[in-house]
Amino acid sequence: MPVSSVAAHVDEREIPFYESVGNECSLFEHAFQQRLPLLLKGPTGCGKTRFVSHMAAKLGKPLFTISCHDDLTAADLTGRYLLQGGETRWVDGPLTRAVREGGICYLDEVVEARKDVTVVLHPLTDDRRLLPLERTGELLEAPDDFMLVVSYNPGYQHILKSLKPSTRQRFLAMSFDFPPPKVERDIVARESGLPGEQCAALVNLAASLRAMKGQDLEEGVSTRLLVYCATLIAAGMPIREAARATLVEPLTDDQDVQEGLMEAIHATFG
Amino acid sequence: MPVSSVAAHVDEREIPFYESVGNECSLFEHAFQQRLPLLLKGPTGCGKTRFVSHMAAKLGKPLFTISCHDDLTAADLTGRYLLQGGETRWVDGPLTRAVREGGICYLDEVVEARKDVTVVLHPLTDDRRLLPLERTGELLEAPDDFMLVVSYNPGYQHILKSLKPSTRQRFLAMSFDFPPPKVERDIVARESGLPGEQCAALVNLAASLRAMKGQDLEEGVSTRLLVYCATLIAAGMPIREAARATLVEPLTDDQDVQEGLMEAIHATFG
Amino acid sequence: MPVSSVAAHVDEREIPFYESVGNECSLFEHAFQQRLPLLLKGPTGCGKTRFVSHMAAKLGKPLFTISCHDDLTAADLTGRYLLQGGETRWVDGPLTRAVREGGICYLDEVVEARKDVTVVLHPLTDDRRLLPLERTGELLEAPDDFMLVVSYNPGYQHILKSLKPSTRQRFLAMSFDFPPPKVERDIVARESGLPGEQCAALVNLAASLRAMKGQDLEEGVSTRLLVYCATLIAAGMPIREAARATLVEPLTDDQDVQEGLMEAIHATFG
Amino acid sequence: MPVSSVAAHVDEREIPFYESVGNECSLFEHAFQQRLPLLLKGPTGCGKTRFVSHMAAKLGKPLFTISCHDDLTAADLTGRYLLQGGETRWVDGPLTRAVREGGICYLDEVVEARKDVTVVLHPLTDDRRLLPLERTGELLEAPDDFMLVVSYNPGYQHILKSLKPSTRQRFLAMSFDFPPPKVERDIVARESGLPGEQCAALVNLAASLRAMKGQDLEEGVSTRLLVYCATLIAAGMPIREAARATLVEPLTDDQDVQEGLMEAIHATFG
Amino acid sequence: MPVSSVAAHVDEREIPFYESVGNECSLFEHAFQQRLPLLLKGPTGCGKTRFVSHMAAKLGKPLFTISCHDDLTAADLTGRYLLQGGETRWVDGPLTRAVREGGICYLDEVVEARKDVTVVLHPLTDDRRLLPLERTGELLEAPDDFMLVVSYNPGYQHILKSLKPSTRQRFLAMSFDFPPPKVERDIVARESGLPGEQCAALVNLAASLRAMKGQDLEEGVSTRLLVYCATLIAAGMPIREAARATLVEPLTDDQDVQEGLMEAIHATFG
Amino acid sequence: MPVSSVAAHVDEREIPFYESVGNECSLFEHAFQQRLPLLLKGPTGCGKTRFVSHMAAKLGKPLFTISCHDDLTAADLTGRYLLQGGETRWVDGPLTRAVREGGICYLDEVVEARKDVTVVLHPLTDDRRLLPLERTGELLEAPDDFMLVVSYNPGYQHILKSLKPSTRQRFLAMSFDFPPPKVERDIVARESGLPGEQCAALVNLAASLRAMKGQDLEEGVSTRLLVYCATLIAAGMPIREAARATLVEPLTDDQDVQEGLMEAIHATFG
Repeated sequence: MPVSSVAAHVDEREIPFYESVGNECSLFEHAFQQRLPLLLKGPTGCGKTRFVSHMAAKLGKPLFTISCHDDLTAADLTGRYLLQGGETRWVDGPLTRAVREGGICYLDEVVEARKDVTVVLHPLTDDRRLLPLERTGELLEAPDDFMLVVSYNPGYQHILKSLKPSTRQRFLAMSFDFPPPKVERDIVARESGLPGEQCAALVNLAASLRAMKGQDLEEGVSTRLLVYCATLIAAGMPIREAARATLVEPLTDDQDVQEGLMEAIHATFG
Repeated sequence: MPVSSVAAHVDEREIPFYESVGNECSLFEHAFQQRLPLLLKGPTGCGKTRFVSHMAAKLGKPLFTISCHDDLTAADLTGRYLLQGGETRWVDGPLTRAVREGGICYLDEVVEARKDVTVVLHPLTDDRRLLPLERTGELLEAPDDFMLVVSYNPGYQHILKSLKPSTRQRFLAMSFDFPPPKVERDIVARESGLPGEQCAALVNLAASLRAMKGQDLEEGVSTRLLVYCATLIAAGMPIREAARATLVEPLTDDQDVQEGLMEAIHATFG
Repeated sequence: MPVSSVAAHVDEREIPFYESVGNECSLFEHAFQQRLPLLLKGPTGCGKTRFVSHMAAKLGKPLFTISCHDDLTAADLTGRYLLQGGETRWVDGPLTRAVREGGICYLDEVVEARKDVTVVLHPLTDDRRLLPLERTGELLEAPDDFMLVVSYNPGYQHILKSLKPSTRQRFLAMSFDFPPPKVERDIVARESGLPGEQCAALVNLAASLRAMKGQDLEEGVSTRLLVYCATLIAAGMPIREAARATLVEPLTDDQDVQEGLMEAIHATFG
Repeated sequence: MPVSSVAAHVDEREIPFYESVGNECSLFEHAFQQRLPLLLKGPTGCGKTRFVSHMAAKLGKPLFTISCHDDLTAADLTGRYLLQGGETRWVDGPLTRAVREGGICYLDEVVEARKDVTVVLHPLTDDRRLLPLERTGELLEAPDDFMLVVSYNPGYQHILKSLKPSTRQRFLAMSFDFPPPKVERDIVARESGLPGEQCAALVNLAASLRAMKGQDLEEGVSTRLLVYCATLIAAGMPIREAARATLVEPLTDDQDVQEGLMEAIHATFG
Repeated sequence: MPVSSVAAHVDEREIPFYESVGNECSLFEHAFQQRLPLLLKGPTGCGKTRFVSHMAAKLGKPLFTISCHDDLTAADLTGRYLLQGGETRWVDGPLTRAVREGGICYLDEVVEARKDVTVVLHPLTDDRRLLPLERTGELLEAPDDFMLVVSYNPGYQHILKSLKPSTRQRFLAMSFDFPPPKVERDIVARESGLPGEQCAALVNLAASLRAMKGQDLEEGVSTRLLVYCATLIAAGMPIREAARATLVEPLTDDQDVQEGLMEAIHATFG
Repeated sequence: MPVSSVAAHVDEREIPFYESVGNECSLFEHAFQQRLPLLLKGPTGCGKTRFVSHMAAKLGKPLFTISCHDDLTAADLTGRYLLQGGETRWVDGPLTRAVREGGICYLDEVVEARKDVTVVLHPLTDDRRLLPLERTGELLEAPDDFMLVVSYNPGYQHILKSLKPSTRQRFLAMSFDFPPPKVERDIVARESGLPGEQCAALVNLAASLRAMKGQDLEEGVSTRLLVYCATLIAAGMPIREAARATLVEPLTDDQDVQEGLMEAIHATFG
């Protein structure tokens, strides 16, 4: 599963598995070559993070991932002075590290962050790609191999939490959805070790569960949860128990909806 | 009753008593083996905390428990610099200790915490299970014997206080309910020292009181309160007085509802 | 009148006068013996604080009282580091002192406190009764003679200000009301020095004033105010003037309601 | 006009002029003798502050006055540590000074203060009259000549800004209103130097202006403004100009209401 | 145009031009002589600030101006300790400087300030005119040549942003409006260098634009903008272009209203 | 594309391309000569920032750009003390640097900033053009070659976020819109390297997309996005893919609206 950390690293083991289902790899590479920032849109767990991780590894660039939240501020991204031994020392935040060292900086669920992050995103998305560090007095120019990627889930959008057009219009953008069945089956099989046939059944099941989204479910089941389910089955847990713990309970607290989901599971696995 | 503290320790006395009522022990062990995080859902005082305590002791792992609340932030979990003798010293929070030393970290009522805790939960629930400490510049990788458990009470859910699907879908999940009568009787007897027969009557009473939930009561009587009641009776307090102080007054301030509860108590104990 | 301070002390003079009107002393003693926390519910000035003060003195234990308010945080209870002479020094809060030294810690109007106080109340109400001090790295175990008492006024309860069931169900609980007439007469006479007969008239008056609660008055007249009134009369102030200053003006700003109260006073004292 | 400062001082010049219009002086003295706290209620500028100033001087006690506001906290009253020359030094707040040195502490418009001031008011209004200073570890007992006085304006009361009954019922209370005409005339004449006859005309005018309160005016004209008006007239300003600047413009921004007020002025002064 | 700064200075060049249109100079001088505070009310840009500047220069007193805003606190006015070279140093705020050195302190748009500024305004508007500096332990008495002036725009008043009567009734008050045509023409001519005839046309135009206030415009065109317009015309810019940039665009974003304003401009200048 | 940073610099390469479409250059130059502040209004990405950049370079003045946001305060503009090596050092903010060194200070989307920025804008827009630095005790007078420019997007205006008339009326103002087709074509061609003919088609397309604003789109497509689109096409990406990633996805998440936009694209490019 994808690398998610604020620390930079080139994954030395291998390029994370990702099978392209459209022109997304091409678009990412164009964006990287043309030094343009990229916005990814899509539901929870559909593979946005893995895609970024895959592309970072493929391009041989370190990846800096930040999960945004209600209290994330510009200083969390750029850095701050810390007092140590009576001496203050500047400590770069993950965005500053990415700009200094090159690499891909990925802000996951960017709409959750505080509004002052726009002050660092805007100059970085202009053509000179600058990161001003007011506190240190530095004006960093991003190297050619720096790339900014942000994502959000359009299904969550509140009035209070959305990207302003003046920010959105600074990004190339693309929509993600769950991978097509064959691709998803391969992902699940690869991650869990469960035979492909059983994985295919799980993917079919996911399709029928996802069809319930909007009516009864806030969000469809993610590929990640399919992998969890397959992992438990591969480890010997009965299918129904595994399915309840991964495809039902994490999705809803509503008993009626849970029963609806379990019926779909029974229909698939008998 | 269960261990609840932010300090790590392996309980040396004995494994806290817990009688499994379904596949919960199996699921917990699978999650531990597969290094997957676990979400427990259920009403107040139904035994979630004791279950976690039981499993931690059974697995021989230290337990780090944190009661979440409106003002709990990521730094409360990960740690902070403290100024001492003119020198700043980093002090690990309970989550960081669990990641460094191994063990089970349990966030009770996780929906109450501030939103920036997601920033530490997300990377820990990815497959590399990382805990980035921005302040110290460390990137900790959780050992195989680290496990993250969170819980919440679906009956409380507000719009403002719920787990986002993007967080929920990172956990295996299971629902808890009050234990079945025989199990609950054994728990009450064991904790209070009251003979099993009297405990059985209390458990029967609890069933009829719990049936009033939703209509008149926000929450049904917990096993914990049954233990309190039995403890007072065992210490010589008249049954009715003990029942009023443990099964009525803690549940509601409404006089009419209190009378309804007392009637049920009279019906049981005459 | 009762001891109310955050400082510990055993009152050396005498045990504060308190006449039991039910099983409250017995319940308090049981709770103390069984090491269970206690919740007191009741209107303003009905004697909850005095009761706690009485029991503390009777048990020979120091009392630590904290008036809770909107801005009270866990750190106010547990303690904090203070910078003095370039050196930081940890200063215990009242709760920590009670846990270290033994004694009764009383949180008056606990629903007013900030939500992070639950983080210290919950482990203290589990059976190992622990107080973790994250900042100092200590894990204090409460001694046998530590007892936690909290109170609130059910008449005030807002949606935003109430105890969560998961907190309430950790306490033995009991309701308080104003003392019965004879007891209240004795209290007033004892505190004010006014002859018992006149005190009885004041207590009768209080009953008729309390009957107006809910219609016109937010809260009935407290025993404390009766003592004030008797004190002024004993000091030579005309009865009507004393009654206006103690039984009318402190209760309402509404002129019509004030006149209604004064009429009741005239009816009693002519 | 009255002394209003957070600094203690015994006014050496003379006792500020105040003519009693009821039993207020007697009540204040009783409260002082019986060591009971006092609550004054009444409209803006009716003389509450001057009354307190008068009584303080008469009793020969220093007066500590605090104008409460939205951001006033307990620490503003009790004191705080300040860093000076690398050394922290505790600086008493005005309430602490009053408790240490004796004197009258007056909290003007107490409902405006933050809620944590109740934590210091409550123990001071119990019979041991304690002021716990958590930060310094001190527990101050108020001397016999300490008195707490608070005031508010019932006409302002919001839902969010009122004294809780549990606080109100700790005070003796009395209502203030504007002084009777003869008294007010003397006050105005004394403060402004304007002959008593002209002052009497101003006081008559005030009565008719105050009758407009509630309909068109939020608050009636204060004695203070009458003094301003008389001062300007005594200094040679035409009556109408003085009246507009003191009795009309400070009361309302509404042109129609201003005209209504000016008509009343013309009717009085031609 | 008027001096607006937090720094004190006596303007050495000349007394800023201001032509009295009523008794405002007389009232200001009376207030200064009688040591009474003054409240100015009126629309944006009608000359309140210039008037204060004029009077300060005429009286030969330094002027301290503060533009109030949502975040302005008492400490911004009185001063604070700053840490410099390991040493804390007290730095007077503008109000404290005015009290220490004498001069006129002007709080522009005082209703915008935080509520704790009342704590410094109230004692300064009592007759002893005191400024208590809690932090330094000083109690400053304002010298005879200190004067406090505040202003606000009644057209803006919100419920949340208004002066409480208890504050308003501490001030002499007067209303301002735009100057009469002849006076305004002189001001515009003097400031811009444009011949008086053209200025008269601009002033006539302003009258018709101001008549649109309330219907379509939040605020009428200010004298300041007329000066801007005249300045651009004097510098060679075509009249219509100058009028659009100064009398239309700054007033509204609504296209229809802009067209209405331009029509009025065409009607005047052809 | 335009320079956007908080650091000052004269662009040495060349004057950024900008083709005037009205009197905007003349107005800017007049404002600079007459030392008057300027307000630019217009939609996202219509060229306001580039215009300012162009004018700064043409006038040979350094440019200081600040992207305003919800948390931007006056101190972010003026500077603050930073602790370094035990010593505090004052660090100028971008506005202070512009005032000290001369140059153009540009506050982009000024309505987003916190309200205390008005305290620095107001004195700078008076005729003496002062920047008081309360913290350092300095009173800076802006040099002749200092100019203040602010912008906002009238399409965003909320009730809570708008410029007060008392601030607006301190600025010359002008409205911006997207450049006329021929100018926009030249801009797109110049920035992307795509032949002018293809750029003309894109500009035509933009016109039809912009016509959908208000109905379905919050904001029309910006010139910046046209440049992105042209850049991708010039780099070899199929037109439709490039258009989707730049002219559709960044504008809306709504599938129906996306289809409407794609239809317009098909209609243009077949």
